[in-house]
Amino acid sequence: MKLNEGVEWAIHCCSILAALPPKTALPAKRLAGFFELPVHYLAKHLQSLSVAGLLKSSKGPGGGYWLAKPAKDIAVLDIVQAIDGHGAHFQCTQIRQNGPTAVAAKCYNKPCGIARTMWQAETAWRKELAAVSLADIQQLGLEETPPQQLEKSLQWFEQVI
Amino acid sequence: MKLNEGVEWAIHCCSILAALPPKTALPAKRLAGFFELPVHYLAKHLQSLSVAGLLKSSKGPGGGYWLAKPAKDIAVLDIVQAIDGHGAHFQCTQIRQNGPTAVAAKCYNKPCGIARTMWQAETAWRKELAAVSLADIQQLGLEETPPQQLEKSLQWFEQVI
Repeated sequence: MKLNEGVEWAIHCCSILAALPPKTALPAKRLAGFFELPVHYLAKHLQSLSVAGLLKSSKGPGGGYWLAKPAKDIAVLDIVQAIDGHGAHFQCTQIRQNGPTAVAAKCYNKPCGIARTMWQAETAWRKELAAVSLADIQQLGLEETPPQQLEKSLQWFEQVI
Repeated sequence: MKLNEGVEWAIHCCSILAALPPKTALPAKRLAGFFELPVHYLAKHLQSLSVAGLLKSSKGPGGGYWLAKPAKDIAVLDIVQAIDGHGAHFQCTQIRQNGPTAVAAKCYNKPCGIARTMWQAETAWRKELAAVSLADIQQLGLEETPPQQLEKSLQWFEQVI
């Protein structure tokens, strides 16, 4: 299985928005340009982040997107689920209730051990992503981005804001 | 993201094969009948389990599939990856190396914090699934399957083996 490719784009874009000075915004076009992404497709994902309450936006000159809350209050999981959905990765279609040995549906009083095992692993996955905030991602970016790129990024911010 | 639907089928089928008496086998047609699954599509997944070294098979009368090793030595993760693949769920396309601030590729000396975070969560998911064996699944099935279905299953085994 593969996560929606927009997950990578969205986390990167949120980490850029986390670096915006207060009361400033970046339009989708600028974010798309920063990462060389297709603007219309990126805009769709930014819209999903807005619907999830992670971004706010305004139109017109000086408009664009900004974080709806502090980066420390946005978990990576929030971003991932805004783009990729909240649904279970493992779909239980209850095949144990098919075939020659099936009994009445009321006899199955809880999800089977296979589904529970699969969902427990998904819970572990979600827990890891819930434990990392956008502020943590931003900190890693500050520490690990090549110094020359950090410098060019500062110049870029000065130009576009 | 969604796991391949064959994952549910494969774990259920392996748990049936784990209940086979020694030196017996079940053909794909029987397994498909047990769960009312499309036989050709199921056969493809059983073939993947064979390629992964989890099942063995023989042709002709009395032929079919059986476990290639004891159920305690098969992890749920083995079955999941045999069907759904071993690839990462999060694809890092290195968008940090795009756009106006990018620097020479050699300056990026490790995967970025975003990719590492996403892959760490996948490791947690894999770890959970590696910790549960097919024998554990079988035990849960014995404990939790409605008694009437267990009884009908025993009768089914007697008929088809």
